[in-house]
Amino acid sequence: MKNWIPAATGLVAGALAATVFFADFSSGPSGSATNENANKTNAEKVYVPYGEHDDYYMLSSGGHSGQLFVYGVPSMRKLRTVPVFTPDPATGYGFDDATKKMLGGFTWGDFHHPAISETDAEYDGKFVFANDVANNRIAAVDLKTFHTADIMSMPNMGGPHAGTFVTQNTEYIVMPTRFSRPLGGDYASLDQFEEKYKGIVSMVKFDQETKKFDLGYQIMLPPWSYDLSDAGKKVSGDWIVMTTYNTEFATTNLEINASQNDRDYIVLLNWKELEKKVADGQYEEINGAKVIDPTKVKGSIYAIPVAKSPHGVDFTPDGTRFIASGKLAPLMTIFSFEKAMEAVKNEDFTDEKFGIPVLPYDKVMEREVDPPGALGPLHTQYDDKGNAYNTMFISSEVIKWKIDTGEIIDRTPIHYSPGHSSAAEGDTASPDGNWLVSLNKIAKDAFLSVGPSHPESMELIDISNDKMELVYTNPVDPEPHYAQIIKADKIKTIPIYEKDEKRPNSVWSQEDTRIERKGNEVHVYGIAMRSKFIFDAKSKRPDELTVKQGDKVFIHLTNIDLDQDITHGFGIMDYNLNYEVQPGQTNTLEFTADKAGTFPIYCTNFCSALHQEMSGYLLVEPK
Amino acid sequence: MKNWIPAATGLVAGALAATVFFADFSSGPSGSATNENANKTNAEKVYVPYGEHDDYYMLSSGGHSGQLFVYGVPSMRKLRTVPVFTPDPATGYGFDDATKKMLGGFTWGDFHHPAISETDAEYDGKFVFANDVANNRIAAVDLKTFHTADIMSMPNMGGPHAGTFVTQNTEYIVMPTRFSRPLGGDYASLDQFEEKYKGIVSMVKFDQETKKFDLGYQIMLPPWSYDLSDAGKKVSGDWIVMTTYNTEFATTNLEINASQNDRDYIVLLNWKELEKKVADGQYEEINGAKVIDPTKVKGSIYAIPVAKSPHGVDFTPDGTRFIASGKLAPLMTIFSFEKAMEAVKNEDFTDEKFGIPVLPYDKVMEREVDPPGALGPLHTQYDDKGNAYNTMFISSEVIKWKIDTGEIIDRTPIHYSPGHSSAAEGDTASPDGNWLVSLNKIAKDAFLSVGPSHPESMELIDISNDKMELVYTNPVDPEPHYAQIIKADKIKTIPIYEKDEKRPNSVWSQEDTRIERKGNEVHVYGIAMRSKFIFDAKSKRPDELTVKQGDKVFIHLTNIDLDQDITHGFGIMDYNLNYEVQPGQTNTLEFTADKAGTFPIYCTNFCSALHQEMSGYLLVEPK
Repeated sequence: MKNWIPAATGLVAGALAATVFFADFSSGPSGSATNENANKTNAEKVYVPYGEHDDYYMLSSGGHSGQLFVYGVPSMRKLRTVPVFTPDPATGYGFDDATKKMLGGFTWGDFHHPAISETDAEYDGKFVFANDVANNRIAAVDLKTFHTADIMSMPNMGGPHAGTFVTQNTEYIVMPTRFSRPLGGDYASLDQFEEKYKGIVSMVKFDQETKKFDLGYQIMLPPWSYDLSDAGKKVSGDWIVMTTYNTEFATTNLEINASQNDRDYIVLLNWKELEKKVADGQYEEINGAKVIDPTKVKGSIYAIPVAKSPHGVDFTPDGTRFIASGKLAPLMTIFSFEKAMEAVKNEDFTDEKFGIPVLPYDKVMEREVDPPGALGPLHTQYDDKGNAYNTMFISSEVIKWKIDTGEIIDRTPIHYSPGHSSAAEGDTASPDGNWLVSLNKIAKDAFLSVGPSHPESMELIDISNDKMELVYTNPVDPEPHYAQIIKADKIKTIPIYEKDEKRPNSVWSQEDTRIERKGNEVHVYGIAMRSKFIFDAKSKRPDELTVKQGDKVFIHLTNIDLDQDITHGFGIMDYNLNYEVQPGQTNTLEFTADKAGTFPIYCTNFCSALHQEMSGYLLVEPK
Repeated sequence: MKNWIPAATGLVAGALAATVFFADFSSGPSGSATNENANKTNAEKVYVPYGEHDDYYMLSSGGHSGQLFVYGVPSMRKLRTVPVFTPDPATGYGFDDATKKMLGGFTWGDFHHPAISETDAEYDGKFVFANDVANNRIAAVDLKTFHTADIMSMPNMGGPHAGTFVTQNTEYIVMPTRFSRPLGGDYASLDQFEEKYKGIVSMVKFDQETKKFDLGYQIMLPPWSYDLSDAGKKVSGDWIVMTTYNTEFATTNLEINASQNDRDYIVLLNWKELEKKVADGQYEEINGAKVIDPTKVKGSIYAIPVAKSPHGVDFTPDGTRFIASGKLAPLMTIFSFEKAMEAVKNEDFTDEKFGIPVLPYDKVMEREVDPPGALGPLHTQYDDKGNAYNTMFISSEVIKWKIDTGEIIDRTPIHYSPGHSSAAEGDTASPDGNWLVSLNKIAKDAFLSVGPSHPESMELIDISNDKMELVYTNPVDPEPHYAQIIKADKIKTIPIYEKDEKRPNSVWSQEDTRIERKGNEVHVYGIAMRSKFIFDAKSKRPDELTVKQGDKVFIHLTNIDLDQDITHGFGIMDYNLNYEVQPGQTNTLEFTADKAGTFPIYCTNFCSALHQEMSGYLLVEPK
């Protein structure tokens, strides 16, 4: 067929026309085309054939699943569920000794807002940070391995819902609280709300060498609630902004009582100045944290009135403005960072709240954007052409508008009730303007039904042209709240774990395998390889492990298959145990052999043609 | 653009040619077209635009994740992770009282082989059954709700790996064991393997009204291992077949020792006759199970030699033949059910193993199919045109061949190392011949890298034409082993749970909400609704729950939003608790308030514009 295309050159125009024709037929109009997707149907835009890769990773929160969802864009294929706050037998996470300790007994988390580490206000692809709203934790996932590297519990907090987000060189990962709460989670009647309950912002440090968190300092704020927030860039790089709601101090029926005020606040604070104040000792130590109290330590923290119950605020890519969205007001409000600094400098304050000076709305506000009929704006994303994008929860649409003029450029319907959205490189100083993904809360009948509870959805929107185009609707498990989309070539994974002769408990040759008994502790130094387990090569049955009932057993297992993607699992029947060793990894499984009997052991992660034969037995001699 | 297509009619041929041209360019050749996919590019074949639905559900095992993965075909979009053997905070599964009890303390399972319930050898779309290889359990998922309805532990087993599969009217769900093991899992040295270790097949009953399992009977078999197996259809409807491996009785290093024999066996047994024998009392009661021992109870169980270490056996759609694949021999072997019955009738036995007569291979075997260069065949799937499909693990391909003649029709490369495959309606009496999905074990560089451990993959193959066509490669979390693909209109979900005034612990009106104390037990009869919790409408703060440290708390929560897809979550901060109530559901959360303090409660599953405000407080007064 290819042959007669060049032969009939008059048909080439027909061919192009036909493409559009088929686009019309199968996937709606493709719009005016100005980019590499020109002349592609929507089907073709999302189709990544075998042999090609997606252009971007999307790192999405998994909400109350506790996990990180990794997607490819534009195919919207889910590449991986990375366990973060919840045990995951598919990868042995939370079963082996190290990850079990890291989880600290928790079996779930509520992961809302991923933040990729940044260098010079650009995603650098090294780590992604995660918040656990439910249990006040922060986690870091190493993007070399897509493994969770560290989890830290944060004292004094009441649900770090408004982050994580990072400062422009990842000096801090910021976690503002959602629910105000007595410090330390102590008991205090709700009648004492204004007095005893506090909002806390945690400024967390992460050492990229040791891969460990450390709590830098905390900021004590009024008992308001905080929502998705942002750090400044370039000129505003020392500042962070946060939206607040429930400035009414409601303690019950927030649905009504926290929606009374026409204005809530943006909190604007200078993390660098506060860092210096902490270094100067201007803090109180509370439950192990260095806490700054703005009623005592003046300056560096300001409030700006903003339209009712906002659900997010974001600096523009150039860092000169920040845009807040009033969830219960139909407004996007643009504030000038320069004007805010002027007001700060001139001490042009209209009020003070809990020691925090309030800046004059009219002087700092640059423009209110109020698209007709639009309702429920959430936070703002950006492209490379000076445009902003807002999801509208209630009117179920995305609105594209010009930051400089407030002009509405385009609107596209969404199915349905979008929460936040994420643009390619959208939180950096240089969003690239190719894709926007809307994270939708209600799918209705978008997909085949899976019962009373439907999937959420992610909708892919091509924003490379003047007109937005909804390209694809993709179902997703509960529940993405926020995501970041990063260029694929920024993430550099390792193919295997390096063979490390000095690593404690590792065994690299069969003759070093052994079973050592110390009192009632049994230590197995074993090997997993295609296609067998070797616990003790010198034994009659190298894959048999016999212990006594009541023994405490430690299985130190090294995967000596130093080949990409050859992961071995290790499950013990009826013992509720399963963990894995990736190529070159050593992991330890610890358990008490409290049940006597005969328990098959087998490789749970398909590894080779003789995977089925990769097994052994745990024999527990009765007491 | 549409306008000038009709105007330039001479270009229509060009348009069609152009489609193929673009197919060549973007997605490989589309092959000769004989079905509704004619003239569609691969991109168009998998693209399901908003407003349309997938044609099929694919119900896939989630392997050691323990869960059921639900996909749409042909889009290959994952519609839902249904928790089965592993707790899942995203849905509260294993956190609320009822599902926690159902899981029985286990925090993982190894789900290998889903089986959809059948009526007259056709999927009826009512339930899907699941095996837990690791912990010897069976589960049923109700396809009206996609919720796990029941889980039962099976005595005497050593990993039910060779099923589940169902008889043609779901009289039994069959679970043959993988690892032989002393009955009851008792301790016995591996030196006593041939004497004390047993293979067990469980014949499980499921009551579709009460949605409860019951163990019908078990069959004691030699200490061999068993792999993916099948029940007969039509003429063979009373029979089941199972492949065996490790007929060498190896107890160590199975990689070598279980691969010595050139022939292992197919076990052929008549479940209806055995049922009668059980009814006649010809069984022993062992650990609560009725166990038939073929060394004592003669007849109804036979063995047939088969090529080395087979990995599956399947009846043809008409039930007249069964096809086994020798994983370590490059053969698919077709056996005649009629000839097997003849040999049984004539007592034409060549040997006896553990009381089981062995049928003569040459007389029962109809044909060996040995495609040149093909290595590692797994089990067999079918289309509607008399063809069979086998995945080849080692040569990484799918082979299509004619059952009647053994003729090889087509081969297509797979990326890489396919395990089992699943055809649309493929295990029924009438496979429909549209799609085959290959469940691949090794993805290599098919996708963007997510570290040393890569995703598995599912590859969609269009089998509607003579030539197979690989249409799409889709990543998937660990680890699908088997799947079934069912026509979408066969599954009828309910939109909401019915309002049931008589349901224990349900509360349907605000005035009935209440908190009752009985000693140190606190029972909350509460409501979840958009956008608040009401524990006691008469209280000053209806969403406050104050208890004393040490109280045992029961929160009975009813979701009175009887609207589709309005699910509410219920998380308690720092208490590691989260569950959900779907529309019309009542669920109970039970916990001991052992930590004093102030703990926010909030809706964890996005429900409404004021979801963020749907919260309250648990106050635990210190002792």
